[in-house]
Amino acid sequence: MAIKYELIKECKQTGARLGKIHTPHGTIETPIFMPVGTQATVKSMTPEELKEIESQIILSNTYHLYLRPGHDLVEKAGGLHKFMNWDRPILTDSGGFQVFSLGDLRKISEEGVEFRSHIDGSKHFISPEKAIEIQNSLGSDIIMAFDECAPYPADREYVKNSLERTTRWAKRCKKAHKNTDTQGLFGIIQGGIYKDMREQSAKEITELDFPGYAVGGLSVGEPKPLMYEVLEYTTPLMPKNKPRYLMGVGSPDCLIEGVIRGIDMFDCVLPTRIARNGTAMTSQGRVTIKQARFYDDFTPLDPECDCYTCRNYTKAYLRHLFKANEILSARLFSYHNLYFLLKLMKNIREAIKNDNLLDYRKEFFEKYGYEL
Amino acid sequence: MAIKYELIKECKQTGARLGKIHTPHGTIETPIFMPVGTQATVKSMTPEELKEIESQIILSNTYHLYLRPGHDLVEKAGGLHKFMNWDRPILTDSGGFQVFSLGDLRKISEEGVEFRSHIDGSKHFISPEKAIEIQNSLGSDIIMAFDECAPYPADREYVKNSLERTTRWAKRCKKAHKNTDTQGLFGIIQGGIYKDMREQSAKEITELDFPGYAVGGLSVGEPKPLMYEVLEYTTPLMPKNKPRYLMGVGSPDCLIEGVIRGIDMFDCVLPTRIARNGTAMTSQGRVTIKQARFYDDFTPLDPECDCYTCRNYTKAYLRHLFKANEILSARLFSYHNLYFLLKLMKNIREAIKNDNLLDYRKEFFEKYGYEL
Ligand SMILES: [Zn+2]
Ligand SMILES: [Zn+2]
Repeated sequence: MAIKYELIKECKQTGARLGKIHTPHGTIETPIFMPVGTQATVKSMTPEELKEIESQIILSNTYHLYLRPGHDLVEKAGGLHKFMNWDRPILTDSGGFQVFSLGDLRKISEEGVEFRSHIDGSKHFISPEKAIEIQNSLGSDIIMAFDECAPYPADREYVKNSLERTTRWAKRCKKAHKNTDTQGLFGIIQGGIYKDMREQSAKEITELDFPGYAVGGLSVGEPKPLMYEVLEYTTPLMPKNKPRYLMGVGSPDCLIEGVIRGIDMFDCVLPTRIARNGTAMTSQGRVTIKQARFYDDFTPLDPECDCYTCRNYTKAYLRHLFKANEILSARLFSYHNLYFLLKLMKNIREAIKNDNLLDYRKEFFEKYGYEL
Repeated sequence: MAIKYELIKECKQTGARLGKIHTPHGTIETPIFMPVGTQATVKSMTPEELKEIESQIILSNTYHLYLRPGHDLVEKAGGLHKFMNWDRPILTDSGGFQVFSLGDLRKISEEGVEFRSHIDGSKHFISPEKAIEIQNSLGSDIIMAFDECAPYPADREYVKNSLERTTRWAKRCKKAHKNTDTQGLFGIIQGGIYKDMREQSAKEITELDFPGYAVGGLSVGEPKPLMYEVLEYTTPLMPKNKPRYLMGVGSPDCLIEGVIRGIDMFDCVLPTRIARNGTAMTSQGRVTIKQARFYDDFTPLDPECDCYTCRNYTKAYLRHLFKANEILSARLFSYHNLYFLLKLMKNIREAIKNDNLLDYRKEFFEKYGYEL
C-alpha cells in the first residue's frame, strides 16, 4: 500500500481530525493545504522556497502535463519529482475537471471524453484508463480517479447520471492502475447538492476500498453555506481511517470550515493567482496593493506575518513593483500568500491538538473578517 | 570623498587593471560587471540571490525611478538602498540616455531636455541640475553626470556640439551636486568615433576632477572593432587613479576586450533581457532553449557551470518552463546568466593577478566562440 492514513486525534470542540498521511516521499501532517504546481512548477516559486515555507505536498495537473510537455517526456526524465526537482510528495488530479472546464468542443461518452487542446486546438481523447496511464507515467504519490464533475446548478437527473458514470469510471481506474505499491489511487465522491445522491455515491465509491477519498463537485460556484451543508452530511459517510480531500478549496474561511467538517486535504490556485494580481491574504483580510493609499505606506503587507516578504519589504515598494509589472512582485506576493495559508493550517493543527478549534476560528475571523 | 579608487596592479600581458573602489556601502573589486535593476529591482531576482552570485554593485535607472514611483517617494522611504532592500553599492545613471532613447517628442535645449513619459505621455523636463537632484534623492553611491549621447552614425559637427554641451552640463552637474560626502559624481567622456574629439572631451571632463569617469557614446550600434579602436585611444587619456566605466556593455567578448583596453566597470541589461527570452550565455556559447533539440535533453544548461540553475535543472525542464511561459523560467535563466558574467569577471580578475589575461582570453573564446 503506497498511502496510509493515521488518525492522531479529533478536536473535542469540533470533531476536526489531526492525522498523518504516509507516502513514498515522506509523511504529511494533516489537515494540510497543497500549493498548486499546474505545469510542473508552483508559479514563481522554487522548490527550495516551497520547503522554506514548509510545503509538505504539492499538486500538479494531469491535463496540463499531458498536453505539455507530455507525460512520456516526464517519464523519460525519471518522473515528475525528478523532472521538477521536488522530492516531497506530489498529488496529481485526474485531468477530468480541466477537460470539462478548459478543453474545447468536448464530447462525453461512456468510453471517455474527446476534447481539443486549449493550447493548439489539437484533438485528444482521455478515458479513465488513459488518465491512470498518464498519472502512472508521472509517478505522483497520490493519483486521482477520472470523474465527471457536474456543474452547479445541475438538475437531479444530470447529477445522478454523472455520479453513476463516476462510479463506473472509478472501477475502470482501479483496474487500470499499475503502480499500487508506489502510487495511491483516491476515489472521488460526486452527487452535487443532493443528499441522497451523495449517500449513493459515497456508498458506491467507498465500497471500492481506495486508500483515500475526495469530495468532488463542490467549490464550483455554489454559495459557501450550501457547500458547508453538503460537507456536513457527506464526510460522516466517509471512512475514518482514510484521508478526506476537498478539491479546489483555498480561501481561509473555507479551509477552517472544511476542517471543522472533517476534511484533511485542500488545494487551490487562489493564493498564487491573486498574488499575480497584487492581492495578499493577511491577518486583517485581503490587501489589494494597487490601491492609492498604499503609495507611501512603509509598513509590511501583514504586520503579524514573519515571512520573507513581510520581513524585508514595504507596501510602498510592493505597490511599485506591481505597478511596474515586475516579476519580483508575483514572487513576493506568492511567497507571502502560500506562507499565510500554510501557517493557517499549522495553527489549525495546533488548535485541534489543544481542542480549541472553535476558539481559534473566532479569533481568526474577528481580525480577518468573514468572506461569504 | 565618497568614492576612492585603488589600483592594485596591471596585467603584464595586457595592461588590464586590477583595482578596488571604496564606496559608502562597501568596497568593490574591479574589473566588475554591474547587474541592472532598472526599476529598483534586478528583474526576477531578490537581493539575497544577487548576493549569492556575488554581485558587488548594481545599477539603477534615474529616468525610470523619476517617472515611477518618483524620487520623492524613494527619498521618503529612506533612499534607494532601503526602498529596494539592497545594502551594497548602487550606481545610478543620469537619465540622459533614456530621455534620448525612450522619451517621446523630446526637445533639446541648452537648458536641458523636454520629453514625454513613455508610460503615460505626461510632459517632463530634465536639466543637469534636475538629474543631480533626483540622484541626490535616490542616495546611490555613484551618480552620473547628465550628458548628451550622440547616436551612431553622427557627423563631426553633431558630435562636437554634443561633447561640448556635455562638458558645459558636467560643470553644472558638479555645481548642483549636494552630497559629495556620501555620493561620488562621475563625469562622462563623449566624442563619438572621432579621435580628436575624444581627446577634446577627455581633456575637458578630466580637468573637472571627478572621482571617476565613464566612456559614453559607445555600444550604440557601431561595429565592435570600431568600439575597441575608440577605447584604445580613449582610456590612455583617462587618469590612472580613477575608475573607468564603459556604459551599456555586457556581452562576454566585449567585457574581456574592454578590460584589456583598461576598463574597470561595465553594466548591461543583456543577461537578464535574453534570459526572459530563454537564452543563456554558456561556456560553449549561447543556448536558445526553445530549439526542438532540447526537448529531451536532460543535461544542464552549461555543463561547466555550478550555479543553482545548472546544479538542479535540465534543459528539457527549462525548455518546458519557457514554452509554458512560467515565471520560474525567467528566474532560472536570469540567475544563470548573471552568475556566468560575474564568474567571468572573477576569472578575469584572477587572470590579471596571474599576468595571463591573454591566455585566459584565448581559452575562453576557443570554447565560447567569438561574437562579432
Ligand atoms: Zn508575509
Ligand atoms: Zn549555470
